[in-house]
Amino acid sequence: MGKASPIILALDVAEHEKAIQIAESVKDHVWGYKLNWPAILGSGKQIISDIKKLNKPVIADLKLADIGNTLDLISQQVFAQGADYIIGQPFIGSEPFSIFDPKKLILVVEMSHPGATQFIQPLTEQFCSMAREMGVWGVVAPATRPDRVKQIRDWVGPETKILSPGVGAQGGTASETIQAGADLIIVGRAIYNTPDPKQAASCILEAI
Amino acid sequence: MGKASPIILALDVAEHEKAIQIAESVKDHVWGYKLNWPAILGSGKQIISDIKKLNKPVIADLKLADIGNTLDLISQQVFAQGADYIIGQPFIGSEPFSIFDPKKLILVVEMSHPGATQFIQPLTEQFCSMAREMGVWGVVAPATRPDRVKQIRDWVGPETKILSPGVGAQGGTASETIQAGADLIIVGRAIYNTPDPKQAASCILEAI
Repeated sequence: MGKASPIILALDVAEHEKAIQIAESVKDHVWGYKLNWPAILGSGKQIISDIKKLNKPVIADLKLADIGNTLDLISQQVFAQGADYIIGQPFIGSEPFSIFDPKKLILVVEMSHPGATQFIQPLTEQFCSMAREMGVWGVVAPATRPDRVKQIRDWVGPETKILSPGVGAQGGTASETIQAGADLIIVGRAIYNTPDPKQAASCILEAI
Repeated sequence: MGKASPIILALDVAEHEKAIQIAESVKDHVWGYKLNWPAILGSGKQIISDIKKLNKPVIADLKLADIGNTLDLISQQVFAQGADYIIGQPFIGSEPFSIFDPKKLILVVEMSHPGATQFIQPLTEQFCSMAREMGVWGVVAPATRPDRVKQIRDWVGPETKILSPGVGAQGGTASETIQAGADLIIVGRAIYNTPDPKQAASCILEAI
């Protein structure tokens, strides 16, 4: 591999052994790992430290959307397991996130599912301004529409990382998303739901 | 006790033994239990079935805010442990929640923390309409402002349960909240963070 991979593996696998096995097999083809509640419920919070042993960045994709006191109780346990970054929903306002080091925080500024048109997409510009003002490490913006990624890059500025899910199962393509301004692409089912996850990751990487 | 208690214990206790002990001690003074991520991270998802053994309703307060596929992966594991209801954030739109039986769903239509004024409170009426149209079992609305509970009762109609957190540590009073139209009140720290949780629950119950 010539240059660093921009792929984040979304490891939404509930079975502990299978999750570890897949994570290990794609180690050389990914930038890092994203663990969401399906994996944490399935294996317990220790899955975070288990994956962290592979010495890659680990993102806890918790979609945090609660009051500050609860976010504090949740994040203490998650950072104690070695998570590097935590993902929150800006809908709850900037105040509950003030307990975090912004350099460990990632905010979801746009979502790609059909329901996102109702309340989220009309607020994306405001979420981006909030993310920029807070100086968060990164934002999540879907790979399904490269024109939106480009627009979001303008709104968040050059310093904020853009992480784009929706490549593969949801229809986005990796190269278009990177060209539009994303720093990292999040791939889940198109890697972990294949007979050979390592091969699948390698193919996506080559296509970029 | 003459009539049924309207108290839901928000059991945000990470230590397994302590959580079980508190839950048992207040059993005769509560309607049911609410488990959020702090308890689930601390004890594993099995805390849900452990608490369910007390034969009271158990609400999984997950503040769900993700795409449908992820909600499915999460809720399958949580309902398999015996949870009766699951709490979601309506700002992701109605579509991701279509996978659920609405009679097991509770939506957060308003929040009480300072950050809620930014994006949530202006949308409360729309969230209430959505909850009513979906026919969800209940909504969450803060006890900190009884006038808002009254307004929300108008918006969601008479069939929808209103669950109100914010009694105690956040400043709301139980009797005012019930009078304003709430069916159930959610109490956390004012019960579990006291030397005698049973006594604390009993006092809150008497004050209603």
